[in-house]
Amino acid sequence: MRQVCVVGVGFSQWGEVWRRSLRGLFVDAAMNAIKNAGVDHLDSLYVGCMASGPFVSQEHLGALMADYLGMKGLPAMRVESACASGGMAFRQAFIEVAGGFSDIVMASGVEKMTDCSGDDATAALAMAADQEYEVFNGATFPGLYALMAHAHMARYGTTRQMLSAIAVKNHKNGAKNPVAQYPFEITIEGVEKSVMIADPLHILDCSPITDGAAAVIVTTEEIARKLGKPYIKVLGSGLATDTIQLAHRADLTTIKASTLAAERALKMAGKTIRDVQFAEVHDCFTIAELVILESIGVYKPGQAGPAILAGETALEGKFPVNSSGGLKSKGHPVGATGIAQIAEVYKQLTGQAEKGRQIPGSPKIGMTQNMGGSGASSVVHIMEVA
Amino acid sequence: MRQVCVVGVGFSQWGEVWRRSLRGLFVDAAMNAIKNAGVDHLDSLYVGCMASGPFVSQEHLGALMADYLGMKGLPAMRVESACASGGMAFRQAFIEVAGGFSDIVMASGVEKMTDCSGDDATAALAMAADQEYEVFNGATFPGLYALMAHAHMARYGTTRQMLSAIAVKNHKNGAKNPVAQYPFEITIEGVEKSVMIADPLHILDCSPITDGAAAVIVTTEEIARKLGKPYIKVLGSGLATDTIQLAHRADLTTIKASTLAAERALKMAGKTIRDVQFAEVHDCFTIAELVILESIGVYKPGQAGPAILAGETALEGKFPVNSSGGLKSKGHPVGATGIAQIAEVYKQLTGQAEKGRQIPGSPKIGMTQNMGGSGASSVVHIMEVA
Repeated sequence: MRQVCVVGVGFSQWGEVWRRSLRGLFVDAAMNAIKNAGVDHLDSLYVGCMASGPFVSQEHLGALMADYLGMKGLPAMRVESACASGGMAFRQAFIEVAGGFSDIVMASGVEKMTDCSGDDATAALAMAADQEYEVFNGATFPGLYALMAHAHMARYGTTRQMLSAIAVKNHKNGAKNPVAQYPFEITIEGVEKSVMIADPLHILDCSPITDGAAAVIVTTEEIARKLGKPYIKVLGSGLATDTIQLAHRADLTTIKASTLAAERALKMAGKTIRDVQFAEVHDCFTIAELVILESIGVYKPGQAGPAILAGETALEGKFPVNSSGGLKSKGHPVGATGIAQIAEVYKQLTGQAEKGRQIPGSPKIGMTQNMGGSGASSVVHIMEVA
Repeated sequence: MRQVCVVGVGFSQWGEVWRRSLRGLFVDAAMNAIKNAGVDHLDSLYVGCMASGPFVSQEHLGALMADYLGMKGLPAMRVESACASGGMAFRQAFIEVAGGFSDIVMASGVEKMTDCSGDDATAALAMAADQEYEVFNGATFPGLYALMAHAHMARYGTTRQMLSAIAVKNHKNGAKNPVAQYPFEITIEGVEKSVMIADPLHILDCSPITDGAAAVIVTTEEIARKLGKPYIKVLGSGLATDTIQLAHRADLTTIKASTLAAERALKMAGKTIRDVQFAEVHDCFTIAELVILESIGVYKPGQAGPAILAGETALEGKFPVNSSGGLKSKGHPVGATGIAQIAEVYKQLTGQAEKGRQIPGSPKIGMTQNMGGSGASSVVHIMEVA
C-alpha cells in the first residue's frame, strides 16, 4: 500500500446559504481545495452526501458535481452513510490512492439543508434512523440522543453541567473559526436556559441545520512533496457499523461502532490512543461528544465528563477536542461534516489554524471520528504531520 | 494489484414484491450469494441503491443491511450513482479487494420501488436527472430517452422496428430467466400497439418499476480456488461521467460516458472490444441498448439497428446482448441492476445459466455496462472465465 497524504483543503460558506445551491456549495469548496493544493487535475471524485434526494430532490451527485467542476468524464460517485457520508468519501479516496488505482483524488462532502423540498429537515434527517421501527414510532434524533444522555447520567452520574461545558467549549473554539455558522461564545447558564428540545437536551446541546460543503485533496506522498505545499500523512482508516436501532443495542452509554472503528484505525496506524494528541469528534449533540471520548478510549467510562469540566478537552488542555468548534458551533451540513473534520486536522497539523485557535505545542498526531445516525456507522482516521 | 474474482451470486424475488421490505429483499439476495459462494464471513459490504430516501424514507443502508444480515460491526456503506449504483458498488468491492484492503467483500444492490412514500416512482427516478434544469421544466426519463431516439432516427434512419426487435429479443431471453419480472415473450406488433409513453417510445420500450435485490461475492483468486466453487476473473473496471443535462451534450446519438468507461475497462483488461463475446447492457429503454452498443464500440454508429434486426444480438447470434432478459424483461430495481448484470455474466461464464438461455459455444469473456440517468454515469466491467 502506498503512503496516502492530504495536501489541500477547501470550504464553501457555511450556514443558511440562500444564494448558493447544492452544486454551487460543492463547487466553491472543491475549487478552494484545488487552489489550496495546487493540483492541475483530478483522477477521481467522491462526494459524501446523506440526503440530497429528500432535501432537494437531486440524486446522482457524482456526475453532477464532476460536470459543474468543469471535469466531465471524471470518474465520480456519491457515497452515503448518513452523517458519516463525508468520512466514508474520505475513506474511499484513501483506499483508491493507497491501492494504486489513482494518484490524485478529491474527497468531498456537501449538504443543502435549509430549503428542504420534503416535509422538513427533521424528517429528512430521520431517514438515518430505522424508518420502520424508530421513525414510524415517532423517534427523532434529539429524542434518541436524549435516551443516551439519560442512560449515561443514570449509570455514571453525568451532570447537566458537563453537557453544557461541551457546548461552551466548542463555541469558544468556533468563535475563532471563519467558516463557523455560529461563531460566538455561549455560557453554561445560556445553554441551560435555552429552549428544551428533548429532555435533558436543550437547543444549545444540538448541532444546527447547515448548508455547506468541504473538500480535501488526497494523493501520494511523492506528489504531495512535488506540489511543495504543506501536507499530512494518513496513517490509518477504520470503519465499523452497529445496529441502527437503539432498542437493539446492549448498552446505550457507549457507541460500539466507534470503539471498533477506532481500534481498526489505530491498528492500521500502528498506534495507540495515547499516541493521539487531539481529535475532531462527531458532536451532533453534546452527549455524543462525551460518549465518543469514552467509546474511542480517550477516557474510561464515566470519566469524560469530569475531564471536560476540568478543561482537559479545551484548546490548551491535554487532549483538545473539536478545535474547529465542532458540529455544534461550526455547523453540521451532514454530508460535509466528515470532510470538514479531516480539513481541521490538516490545518492543525500544518500550523494553519486561524489566529487564536491553533492547538499549542505543535501536535504531531490527530484523529477524526465521524458517525451516522445514533452511531450505527462510525469512521475514524489517524493522521500525522509529514 | 491482486487478481479479483467473483465466486457466488444471489437474487431476491424480483417484481412487485409486496411481502418483502427494502431490508428483506437485501437479506434474501445476500444470503443466497453467501450460500452460493460458500463463504463463512465477509470483510466488508457495499450496498448500491439509488433512492431509498425518496422511495421508502430510509437512508443509511450500509449499517442497516449489515445488521439485518446478522453481521453488525461489519464495515459497510452505500454508494449511489442513480441507476448505476449497483455497478459502482461492484467497482468499490473490486478496488478494495485488488488493493489488498479486504479479502471477501459483498457487492450488492437493492431498490424497493413499488410502495413509494413520495409523490410517485417517476418523481423519485427523475432525481437522477438534473433537478434544476431538466426536472423543473417537466422532463422525465421516457421523455429524455425519446429525444435520443428521435435524434438517432433522424441521423441514421433508425426505425421503429429496430427498437421493437430489441424488446422482443430481451423478452425472449427473459422468458427463460426464473428471476424475471415479466418472463413472457412479446411480438413486434405487440410493442408497436402498446400504449405510447413518449413518442417514439411505447410502454413496451420501457423497463418496468421493480422491487428487487442482487448480491455477488468478490474475493481473491486464492480464496476463490479454495472455496472450490465456480468463479470468474474480473479483468477490468472503467468508470466515467458526462454532463447530466442532455441539453449540454454535443451529440444525443451517443453516450460518451459509456464510450470512455468501456475504453478504460478494456485498457485495464488489456483487451479490445473484439475480444468480448457477449454483454449485459443497460436497456432502461430499447433505444438505450441500441445507442450503447454503438457507444462502446460493438457496432459503428448507425449499424447497431440493422445488426439487431439481423439477429446478431440474439442468444445464438454472434454477439449476444442481455441474455438475462435485460432491464426490459428481467426488471429494473435501479440500485440492483448493475449487480444483476455481473451475476448474469458469472452465470454465463460458468455455464450455470438456466435451461434454454445459456449462450452457445462456451464464451470466455463477457462485459457489463451499467449507467445512471440518461448515461451521465457509466461503469463497465470485463470478466473472464477462470
